[in-house]
Amino acid sequence: MRKVLIIGIGAGDPDYLTVQAIEALNQADVFFIPDKGAEKAALRELREEICARFIRRPGYRFVSIEVPVRGKSDDYKADVAAWHAAIEARYTALLESELADGETGAFLVWGDPALYDSTLRIIQEIDAKAPFPFDYRVIPGITSVQALAAQHRIALNRIGEPVHVTTGRKLGEALPDGTDTVVVMLDGEQAFKRLVGRDLEIYWGAYLGTQEEILVSGPLDDVAGEIDRLRREARDKNGWIMDTYLLRGPKTR
Amino acid sequence: MRKVLIIGIGAGDPDYLTVQAIEALNQADVFFIPDKGAEKAALRELREEICARFIRRPGYRFVSIEVPVRGKSDDYKADVAAWHAAIEARYTALLESELADGETGAFLVWGDPALYDSTLRIIQEIDAKAPFPFDYRVIPGITSVQALAAQHRIALNRIGEPVHVTTGRKLGEALPDGTDTVVVMLDGEQAFKRLVGRDLEIYWGAYLGTQEEILVSGPLDDVAGEIDRLRREARDKNGWIMDTYLLRGPKTR
Repeated sequence: MRKVLIIGIGAGDPDYLTVQAIEALNQADVFFIPDKGAEKAALRELREEICARFIRRPGYRFVSIEVPVRGKSDDYKADVAAWHAAIEARYTALLESELADGETGAFLVWGDPALYDSTLRIIQEIDAKAPFPFDYRVIPGITSVQALAAQHRIALNRIGEPVHVTTGRKLGEALPDGTDTVVVMLDGEQAFKRLVGRDLEIYWGAYLGTQEEILVSGPLDDVAGEIDRLRREARDKNGWIMDTYLLRGPKTR
Repeated sequence: MRKVLIIGIGAGDPDYLTVQAIEALNQADVFFIPDKGAEKAALRELREEICARFIRRPGYRFVSIEVPVRGKSDDYKADVAAWHAAIEARYTALLESELADGETGAFLVWGDPALYDSTLRIIQEIDAKAPFPFDYRVIPGITSVQALAAQHRIALNRIGEPVHVTTGRKLGEALPDGTDTVVVMLDGEQAFKRLVGRDLEIYWGAYLGTQEEILVSGPLDDVAGEIDRLRREARDKNGWIMDTYLLRGPKTR
């Protein structure tokens, strides 16, 4: 029996690792490391730092996974489906060839494997098709949403009120009905600009948990321009950016 | 200067503690422990277990906070506001009398201080009124939402889709518009029963991360009765229950 661990390693700061994640790291024989191109070199280094710092037993090895690139047609879901199928084939071949029977493989996922990450879904698909028997386990990690709230020292929810977590792509031109707090992840388009003029507060963070961390908060109408500028400058400087933000409606809503 | 640490200790399993939380535990001179009555004795023991296991330095002390009881009128928000004011007065007095200048006090919060917990809000209020100078910091923790997803080995979101986090009180009779995943916390009324007949899947968990953990998943129409029964039996046996669940609409929505 092969074993696969999908380990949430938190959002940037190695100190976000849980005791459970550290134990899981120490059970793995093989670490499968997706190679997502040059822009993620900084993240790859962080991952290596985490392994070096927390793994006590020698003899583990790394296997690089060259990740197929996602197509960018008008049909986002079709692109994602085709992309996942290609990734699945790659993962299946590597799990079978690189992981011996009885060995444990691990995937290190930024944040939490349950939120906007495809690893768990790919492993579920492989498991459902059962090309070879294996067992898998999921270890949660601190998400960038939680890092954002902690660094800004804010609660995600207003008292007894809901929190809506979504993507830049899905964020409309207003907060969803009945929702005064929206958290936005995976926003490459700075979708918050669409909500300027609606009397919202924003709590924004980039490179959360890392030494490059940037935090901005304030009335969206006042700080949208500053976030735009900081975001562009930082992306130019670092070659990549990951940011997350929270939008909140006026208290009287 | 007094210092206050609001430490997320995760949802039940001591292994959910992060390295950052463990470091924070080891900086505290005083732990303020809210006493919320007999039903939470099991949680108090878990908290003590966490301190005993992770605190390396001797000499820390516990200060119990007798927490005022929340009124239960028809006006939930007014009840919560009055309740918070009473708690705030209690906390202010204790922080001032029990924490010496230069000392560090800590609050241990189940899950993450940013999600459906009042500690951070109380500390912010005290800080805003500035009866004495202090600084505070927030340390995120693994929430029961994340424990639920990990134990069921599911992603919270469908691909690129939003996740709506709410309370039993706020859950309506259908999923909110444009949302196919809803996570419900703080549900004393089993609000999921209102959604039977709507072709939803449920992933339910109680006492997540603890040895008493119970997991049930399946079509809501099929398992609602079983969850009802298990929930009642477990609450009778243990004297308290905490549960969290995820509802998901049909894939074709």
